[in-house]
Amino acid sequence: MANHEIPEIVVGRLPQYLRSLQRMAREGRQITSSQELGERLSISAAQIRKDLSQFGEFGKQGTGYHIAYLIEQLQKILKVDHDWDLVVVGAGELGNAVARYKGFTNRGFKVCMIFDIDPEKIGSQINGFVIQDFACVVEKIRTAGIKLAVITVPTNQAQEVTNKLVEAGIEAILSYAPISINVPEGVRVQYIDPAIHLQRMTFFMD
Amino acid sequence: MANHEIPEIVVGRLPQYLRSLQRMAREGRQITSSQELGERLSISAAQIRKDLSQFGEFGKQGTGYHIAYLIEQLQKILKVDHDWDLVVVGAGELGNAVARYKGFTNRGFKVCMIFDIDPEKIGSQINGFVIQDFACVVEKIRTAGIKLAVITVPTNQAQEVTNKLVEAGIEAILSYAPISINVPEGVRVQYIDPAIHLQRMTFFMD
Repeated sequence: MANHEIPEIVVGRLPQYLRSLQRMAREGRQITSSQELGERLSISAAQIRKDLSQFGEFGKQGTGYHIAYLIEQLQKILKVDHDWDLVVVGAGELGNAVARYKGFTNRGFKVCMIFDIDPEKIGSQINGFVIQDFACVVEKIRTAGIKLAVITVPTNQAQEVTNKLVEAGIEAILSYAPISINVPEGVRVQYIDPAIHLQRMTFFMD
Repeated sequence: MANHEIPEIVVGRLPQYLRSLQRMAREGRQITSSQELGERLSISAAQIRKDLSQFGEFGKQGTGYHIAYLIEQLQKILKVDHDWDLVVVGAGELGNAVARYKGFTNRGFKVCMIFDIDPEKIGSQINGFVIQDFACVVEKIRTAGIKLAVITVPTNQAQEVTNKLVEAGIEAILSYAPISINVPEGVRVQYIDPAIHLQRMTFFMD
């Protein structure tokens, strides 16, 4: 099935499967089942089998999934069998934390440039990278051919920064700002939204 | 239906519905449909109707949903029709950013205490709060009766911090650390994981 025909809600679950499988691999495990994955993720085993079946045959009835093989296949499906270069815009507290984040390792991403507009920050270093002038962002991103950006700028700058990134050829943006940003067709946006995660837990609380 | 009988995967979508509805309300809108919500969220209209129907009758065939009413109902269902006090553990870059985060407003959460173990940070202020000594965390949280915590500590401290929070009576933890933490039954954990969001976008890229 062509990628654009897979429902986004199915695609949204694949990274969760991959993360769980990578954890199992680190625990030294070799085989798992849709039941076990389902329990770890609070998703039904039937849903997991159905999701994976859209991409091929990854396990046999009764014998389960080979973890290493399924990881490899999911990495190919999600196109993270190689590292994507990542630009961070905003060298404040959040930008610093993202630039130093250890959770990108082995998951397909590598921060390679950091930009800010603050003359006091430009030229200083985070995690080995020199903070670059946002005024040069279009040229630098185009030259390097980078497609992915993380924005950690203040809310009132998020849309303007997004427009520049789109102009530079960025195709996917992960935003930490608590507002909805507009992008043209063909550019994707995801949001880091801690309130969403907290609300998923308060539902179950008294 | 009792809350513990609703599948977690359904609960996981409710905050997304609420966020979209709150955006529509800010845009001055009064009525929406499962079709429109579905388009905004890349979820099928049928799925949205099915999810909402587990909690009651919120719209009429052909007339759609009253946005303000549905927001109110979802806030009650998710128990965010009032603010929950929130503790932040870790007063580093991420902890600072979380303490200043503007996206909790009107969404049910209010940061009320910040802890760290670093003697150089303890006593200084973030966002009007004095950074408190983590050595007192159990006593302070118990006395205040706080149930929700956000942890932004280094990876190698995340489990130890979690254990203390559980001892203090915390029932739900949102972790920014890129590792899986263990909690006893009855305590919930969610993770902020930027790699998951990026993988949801690379799937569609070349």
